[in-house]
Amino acid sequence: MKRLLVIGIGAGDPDHLTLQAIKAIAATDVFLVVDKGEVKHELVQLRLDMIAEHGRRPYRIAEARDPERDRTAPAYAAAVEDWRARRALACEALIRDELRDGQTGAFLVWGDPGVYDSTLAIVEEILQRGNVSFAYEVIPGISSVAALTARHRTSLTQVGRPVHLTTGRRLAEHGPTADDMVVMLDAHCSFAGQDDFHIHWGAYLGTPDEILVAGPVAEVGDRIRELRAEARARKGWIMDTYLLRRQGH
Amino acid sequence: MKRLLVIGIGAGDPDHLTLQAIKAIAATDVFLVVDKGEVKHELVQLRLDMIAEHGRRPYRIAEARDPERDRTAPAYAAAVEDWRARRALACEALIRDELRDGQTGAFLVWGDPGVYDSTLAIVEEILQRGNVSFAYEVIPGISSVAALTARHRTSLTQVGRPVHLTTGRRLAEHGPTADDMVVMLDAHCSFAGQDDFHIHWGAYLGTPDEILVAGPVAEVGDRIRELRAEARARKGWIMDTYLLRRQGH
Ligand SMILES: C[S@@+](CC[C@H](N)C(=O)[O-])C[C@H]1O[C@@H](n2cnc3c(N)ncnc32)[C@H](O)[C@@H]1O
Ligand SMILES: C[S@@+](CC[C@H](N)C(=O)[O-])C[C@H]1O[C@@H](n2cnc3c(N)ncnc32)[C@H](O)[C@@H]1O
Repeated sequence: MKRLLVIGIGAGDPDHLTLQAIKAIAATDVFLVVDKGEVKHELVQLRLDMIAEHGRRPYRIAEARDPERDRTAPAYAAAVEDWRARRALACEALIRDELRDGQTGAFLVWGDPGVYDSTLAIVEEILQRGNVSFAYEVIPGISSVAALTARHRTSLTQVGRPVHLTTGRRLAEHGPTADDMVVMLDAHCSFAGQDDFHIHWGAYLGTPDEILVAGPVAEVGDRIRELRAEARARKGWIMDTYLLRRQGH
Repeated sequence: MKRLLVIGIGAGDPDHLTLQAIKAIAATDVFLVVDKGEVKHELVQLRLDMIAEHGRRPYRIAEARDPERDRTAPAYAAAVEDWRARRALACEALIRDELRDGQTGAFLVWGDPGVYDSTLAIVEEILQRGNVSFAYEVIPGISSVAALTARHRTSLTQVGRPVHLTTGRRLAEHGPTADDMVVMLDAHCSFAGQDDFHIHWGAYLGTPDEILVAGPVAEVGDRIRELRAEARARKGWIMDTYLLRRQGH
């Protein structure tokens, strides 16, 4: 039997790694990497550093190319589905060709594998297709949500109140749906105009480039937009997340 | 200056500890404990084991008694506020009397400090009262939400869709507010009757007593209620969390 580990590695700080993740990395024979062929070199390097530090020799790194996602498609979910199906094929080939029976393979997943990440759905899809069989386990990680609130020293939740985790696209389309919201995957500063809200914003959380801004959206919104545009231009990419809390709450 | 660390220790498994948390524990002179005078001996023991394993001698453990919360009060938020105010006084006394300038004190917080926990609000309240001053930092932890989804090998979020984090009380009062919901702090199995939903339920996550059940609420709801009542009677306490996902989604 082949064994697969889906390991959450935290959201940017190598010290986000849990003991469980470190043990899982040490138990891995083959690290499976689907290269995004992308500009985020530092993120690729962070994973390689973790493997070099915590991997137990002899291990191998097996790479496949990630199919490009069609980012211009209007139907976001459909485009993701299509990209995911092609990505699943690439992963299936990796598991089939690079992992022998009795060996342990691992995907190192950014943040927590349960938070807006496709790896678990891909693994299920591969198993359902039935061309390759394996046992698998998931190791939780520090998500960018936990990193954001910790760095701002604020709570995600208020006493007895719900919090909504959502995407920039949903916020732009539907507006605020709760007094407390965390927004991820926002390429367009969809917080703009939400002047009833206080924002805790964080970019490149846990990394040396980390930027934190907090305040009423009406006061700090423009500054966040400038900082974001400037950082994105300088580094070529950005990852940011924010908590919106209705003022007076 | 006194320094305070609020350290997330994960939701039950000692291997949930992050490297950052381990380093923070090693940097602590005085562990501040507000004893709940309660039955959850194993949870108290888990913290002591972590301190014994990762603390750097000489360190001290300073204890205060936690004021009892009035669990019969009808106004939940008000009762929590009152309990919190008294708890803040106990914590303030600990920081004032047990921590010297130049020393580092720490609260070890269950799961992630940002998820339905009062420590951060208490620390802010103490600072605002102004009787004692200190610098403080928050270290994120694996929440029971991350533990739940990892153990069930399922994603918290679906592609492009929001997830609501809420309490049993809110679910009972307002019914489902989204296709994907995580429910915490539920003493009354408020999932009962939500027959449109699939449930991923977990109790004592990460501990040797862990129980996992998944399936349509209509099929597994009764079994969860029985398992929960039985485990609670046997151990004297229970901690459980669940993910509800509308079927067909
Ligand atoms: C594809 S999702 C993956 C989330 C990841 N699984 C997690 O647990 O954080 C990528 C989004 O996560 C957020 N994100 C991830 N890492 C981040 C970081 N270090 N700083 C700020 N935001 C981050 C951003 O909103 C980004 O658009
Ligand atoms: C006061 S809240 C603290 C939550 C904690 N800060 C976290 O990040 O998980 C306590 C609630 O968390 C959930 N919980 C905490 N630990 C758990 C565990 N090991 N298994 C199941 N549920 C847990 C339960 O819903 C419980 O009622």
